[in-house]
Amino acid sequence: EIKNEIRVEWSDCDALGIVYYPHFYRWFDTCTHTLMRRQGMDQRQVQDMFGSLGYGLVDTQATFLAPARYFDKLSIISGITQWSRSTFRVEHEVLRGDTKICSGHELRCWFLPDDTRESGIRAGEIPEAFKAAFS
Amino acid sequence: EIKNEIRVEWSDCDALGIVYYPHFYRWFDTCTHTLMRRQGMDQRQVQDMFGSLGYGLVDTQATFLAPARYFDKLSIISGITQWSRSTFRVEHEVLRGDTKICSGHELRCWFLPDDTRESGIRAGEIPEAFKAAFS
Amino acid sequence: EIKNEIRVEWSDCDALGIVYYPHFYRWFDTCTHTLMRRQGMDQRQVQDMFGSLGYGLVDTQATFLAPARYFDKLSIISGITQWSRSTFRVEHEVLRGDTKICSGHELRCWFLPDDTRESGIRAGEIPEAFKAAFS
Amino acid sequence: EIKNEIRVEWSDCDALGIVYYPHFYRWFDTCTHTLMRRQGMDQRQVQDMFGSLGYGLVDTQATFLAPARYFDKLSIISGITQWSRSTFRVEHEVLRGDTKICSGHELRCWFLPDDTRESGIRAGEIPEAFKAAFS
Repeated sequence: EIKNEIRVEWSDCDALGIVYYPHFYRWFDTCTHTLMRRQGMDQRQVQDMFGSLGYGLVDTQATFLAPARYFDKLSIISGITQWSRSTFRVEHEVLRGDTKICSGHELRCWFLPDDTRESGIRAGEIPEAFKAAFS
Repeated sequence: EIKNEIRVEWSDCDALGIVYYPHFYRWFDTCTHTLMRRQGMDQRQVQDMFGSLGYGLVDTQATFLAPARYFDKLSIISGITQWSRSTFRVEHEVLRGDTKICSGHELRCWFLPDDTRESGIRAGEIPEAFKAAFS
Repeated sequence: EIKNEIRVEWSDCDALGIVYYPHFYRWFDTCTHTLMRRQGMDQRQVQDMFGSLGYGLVDTQATFLAPARYFDKLSIISGITQWSRSTFRVEHEVLRGDTKICSGHELRCWFLPDDTRESGIRAGEIPEAFKAAFS
Repeated sequence: EIKNEIRVEWSDCDALGIVYYPHFYRWFDTCTHTLMRRQGMDQRQVQDMFGSLGYGLVDTQATFLAPARYFDKLSIISGITQWSRSTFRVEHEVLRGDTKICSGHELRCWFLPDDTRESGIRAGEIPEAFKAAFS
């Protein structure tokens, strides 16, 4: 589990003066990368260590409980809550002070390069060494 | 229901050369605004007509089935699939040719200004005239 | 020279309801890619044809004459106005109707991979075949 | 003068793995807002204090000296270098360690609401109290 501090910037706000919602997903993604990095498993590192393409998204979701505004200070608590053969689930909770304003998750898949497919990728088994870094 | 054509731009792609996933939500949002606009109900119009703040998000979700790349041509089919007292659900399907590569939804709420609350907003009943525009 | 039509989206607007200025640069970039693509010289094509990394930025500038708002329809006229050994200049003019609301330029450099440098890149001579595509 | 620390995120990088250039302008903007805020002059505060619309852009420029990559730590040094009747110039310097990788400026104008104009805004004289906050 990791806690990131975010400040809402002018660039994050829409014409109503509240955070434009795709930015919450950008923050989720950044928090996941930070979590990975802290364990020596950032996107470049897993490419080098395992020859994978990294941990792409298969499903994401967010619930918005209250708006966030210009210069609000937010905390995002992020942690891996579930592992399967080729996917893992990261849950994120966004707080302003003690108030939860947004929660969501990312379901991420371990992707390997596969030139035989049009997509260029296939799901692969998550290496034990990767999982172990988070246990 | 509405169909929008999108071209994947250089600005949409991440270091793996595939669409950075929050952009799918930006496209969802744009498609909803286009759908609203076509019926004379864009964000500014509903503010003027009903004094509402518009249709903010309470929940969103997306499933990613295949990556999209630089200069891919995508179609997004968007439609309202459910109405409740103060919310409506917009579903989006992203296709490359005949292949569905992403699907998702936005649950949007009719928000009214409310200075008595810290958030500045409260959910309100969706006006019949708004619903009627989409029936 | 090429003319692109842009519609200002909700996602482009800031808390004042006007286009957040970095989006003008995103549009400049997209117009340059479109111009390149039309001549068979998009980023992937030049990588395949010439082994270059493409045409990165060395300098950009924009002047903002009037704000653009939600659902404004804009045209952007883009053309290459100058060539040097390893750079070329793309000028962009943004119009709403007949009114110019923004103008700017991108100075782009022909970059080659260079593992001997920390940056990983070096400026290279623009191939005649690339220039010829735009004459 | 103010120094901001920035970490390059996955979301900032393009298909070449380097920062997509409009994000430098987003950082410039964020640094200017931070500079303003530190003196009690953020966008909301100047709206409340002076009835202005804030400090919009009339001209921006950036020179890119070296690429920045995923998880690079950057510092941005920002300061006001010039005042005129209705505009001020903010200069930004982006460093990675001791190496300057980008420099640029924003020319910002003091905008007042003006309903008699189609743009809705007009340039106004910068209040002494605003200038004094930065001297």
